Amino acid sequence: MMLADIADTRLDERLLKIELTALGLAARTAATELALASAEAKNSALKSAAAALREKTSAPLSANKIDVDAARAAGRPASFIDRLTISEPRIEATARGLEEIAALADPVGEVTSAWQRPNGLQISRVRVPLGVIGIIYESRPNVTADAGALCLKSGNAVILRGGSECLHTNAAIHACLAEGLAKAGLPEAAIQLIRTADRAAVGMMLDGLGGAIDVIVPRGGKNLVERVQSEARVPVFAHLEGICHVYVDKGADLAKARAIVVNAKMRRTGVCGAAETLLVDEAGASRFLTPLLEALFEAGCEIRGDEHVREADDRVKPANEMDWRTEYLDAIIAVRIVDGVQGAIDHIERYGSHHTDSIVTEDRETAEIFLKRIDSAIVMHNASTQFADGGEFGMGAEIGIATGRFHARGPVGVEQLTTFKYIVRGDGQIRPS
Amino acid sequence: MMLADIADTRLDERLLKIELTALGLAARTAATELALASAEAKNSALKSAAAALREKTSAPLSANKIDVDAARAAGRPASFIDRLTISEPRIEATARGLEEIAALADPVGEVTSAWQRPNGLQISRVRVPLGVIGIIYESRPNVTADAGALCLKSGNAVILRGGSECLHTNAAIHACLAEGLAKAGLPEAAIQLIRTADRAAVGMMLDGLGGAIDVIVPRGGKNLVERVQSEARVPVFAHLEGICHVYVDKGADLAKARAIVVNAKMRRTGVCGAAETLLVDEAGASRFLTPLLEALFEAGCEIRGDEHVREADDRVKPANEMDWRTEYLDAIIAVRIVDGVQGAIDHIERYGSHHTDSIVTEDRETAEIFLKRIDSAIVMHNASTQFADGGEFGMGAEIGIATGRFHARGPVGVEQLTTFKYIVRGDGQIRPS
Repeated sequence: MMLADIADTRLDERLLKIELTALGLAARTAATELALASAEAKNSALKSAAAALREKTSAPLSANKIDVDAARAAGRPASFIDRLTISEPRIEATARGLEEIAALADPVGEVTSAWQRPNGLQISRVRVPLGVIGIIYESRPNVTADAGALCLKSGNAVILRGGSECLHTNAAIHACLAEGLAKAGLPEAAIQLIRTADRAAVGMMLDGLGGAIDVIVPRGGKNLVERVQSEARVPVFAHLEGICHVYVDKGADLAKARAIVVNAKMRRTGVCGAAETLLVDEAGASRFLTPLLEALFEAGCEIRGDEHVREADDRVKPANEMDWRTEYLDAIIAVRIVDGVQGAIDHIERYGSHHTDSIVTEDRETAEIFLKRIDSAIVMHNASTQFADGGEFGMGAEIGIATGRFHARGPVGVEQLTTFKYIVRGDGQIRPS
Repeated sequence: MMLADIADTRLDERLLKIELTALGLAARTAATELALASAEAKNSALKSAAAALREKTSAPLSANKIDVDAARAAGRPASFIDRLTISEPRIEATARGLEEIAALADPVGEVTSAWQRPNGLQISRVRVPLGVIGIIYESRPNVTADAGALCLKSGNAVILRGGSECLHTNAAIHACLAEGLAKAGLPEAAIQLIRTADRAAVGMMLDGLGGAIDVIVPRGGKNLVERVQSEARVPVFAHLEGICHVYVDKGADLAKARAIVVNAKMRRTGVCGAAETLLVDEAGASRFLTPLLEALFEAGCEIRGDEHVREADDRVKPANEMDWRTEYLDAIIAVRIVDGVQGAIDHIERYGSHHTDSIVTEDRETAEIFLKRIDSAIVMHNASTQFADGGEFGMGAEIGIATGRFHARGPVGVEQLTTFKYIVRGDGQIRPS
């Protein structure tokens, strides 16, 4: 690299920093305005954006063609192309998603508790938006609409940074959101899209853009989330991985266990709530193990087991230490025999990722021990881990699932994108000495 | 410094790191146990600790004498000696404080919301402890008992790091807490005291002790909080300063305004909820300004004002830009004339610290504008800012007041020292494709 190139790079970075700082300031100003916006205005913006997507479907479609052609030319794998590609039905689904978010209750201004003090002071705790949310995502362009809409609904401004490979698609979808904001009289800077492919932009977002970003939400693979969690200087709502367990207790009902295990693993293998490890109670293994393995094989699942599991079926491959720590996101499951509910708890606390874990048993006492002792964002009894989802929880859309312990945990819906303040109403009260 | 000294220092630091890492691991193990402890066990530990403090008052008193003598010999100022000194009444107050925390409702296990899904899944959101809390504090030894007790009550393990000048006193108080834990059959490692004066220990805590600390709460002056906020690699619950405002609107009742302004500023000038700036509505200044200034002068307060305020009374000193940004923590107030409620909002959002701000007016509409638009942890109408306190809010004791937007905001009582998990109870539900 020539000295002139280095100088140019630095100039580029400085210009980028200036540009993003200006964008952050605009987002901060928009956030102040958006925090006071009425539910009607926000919902009308969402509905207009949905209408714009439907009316101008050709714009995102032709933009998407540019991105998809470039990705093909770059030799990207089919799974990447699939995530990147949008179609008329996908755009219709995105538009419907915006309308569903519009139909949710507005969390801002909600009084979550209120009480009166003996001196007559009336104290209430009221939801307010968090401020400015930064979203860093990869090749799914629908995140542009989904995340933008969730932030808008919860009164937050948002700075979107999608993958450089879908920049054209994202820009076309973003134009529809901007049109919605403008039609509703809301500041267009409330939903901003970073339009540079320069990777330095991500680092600047992780630094918080000089105080402009309050929280970062990464949406993408483990590498992205890992980088964001280790480098971000602002809070992060995320989960690194979903190493979810199903524990089949000796008190289980076999039919339920079979249905839950197969569904938890195989309904969709690529979602974070998919089970990765099956734990079977030693005391129930003689009754449950073979039928559970059969059902999994039948569903097309590869099984890796400890020596006891391998003894039960010679199609089982050997599991090693790494298998207990692996999020396969594929039709593979690790199976282990454990010593009762305490053995299951010990395994899950050691190898799990505190995302979602489920016990299958008809014994309520054992279930309660599991539910109390497992320290995960979501713990379940007699249900499939694939219910780990904001929609299935009845929260409406979610921006992701968080496994951190602070502020947001589990599905992050519009409520978790708010904080609160206390409002104290008095009639001249002063505090005694 | 000789090379040998450097080597020694490094060895010291390495040993300290090993020691603190072990302490952190012990705290983490204790936290797991404490999360499952019954309310009875935790309350019994608190009551036994209170009893130990009362029975063995002489131990903390003689330990305190060592610390106070050393501080005197080091020429520490009187205010420092006063904060450091404990006495029989102060110990009795500390013991009563422990009993009051024992009497609070146990937040752990509380179901904060519960609902049923159309498919029969029963979802509940249940409070669980945060984990391990690190407290870094200065010369008030009562924090040892108060903070230790609040963390214990909320099911968290705690690592205490008090000022090196009160190490003996803190150790004596800590011994009573440890006795309480032992008597209740709870792990003594649940409340740990770092017993080294080595300042490197603070840096290691701010790093999170290798993942052992979940959140840091600094208790002390602005320098301490500033260091913690800028260096901590884990979440921090704190406020840097309390630049609290009282705005007297043209619609105010003079008698209420006078009482609130004097109380907000002068009841105690050293607390974070003390008012530092008085804003008077231009349209009400002719009626309110002189009586408010009179009342403040009468109470012994120094007044620094803008030119309009100085015209009203020649005892008023000139205020400059820095006065609007200063937390005096003293009998000094800055006074400014503003253009109505929007002028007050603009001033507070520009200069305030988002702690506590109050409007005085009989005009409810104006009050609601202020309550909605001021983005502070606590906003008040017709009440003294000195009510910014967990006890006054009815939360019982607090570990401090937070101005951050994440997780904890306003008074941080036992509830804010918890997080939550979702418990999902089913009867074999699987998720449809």
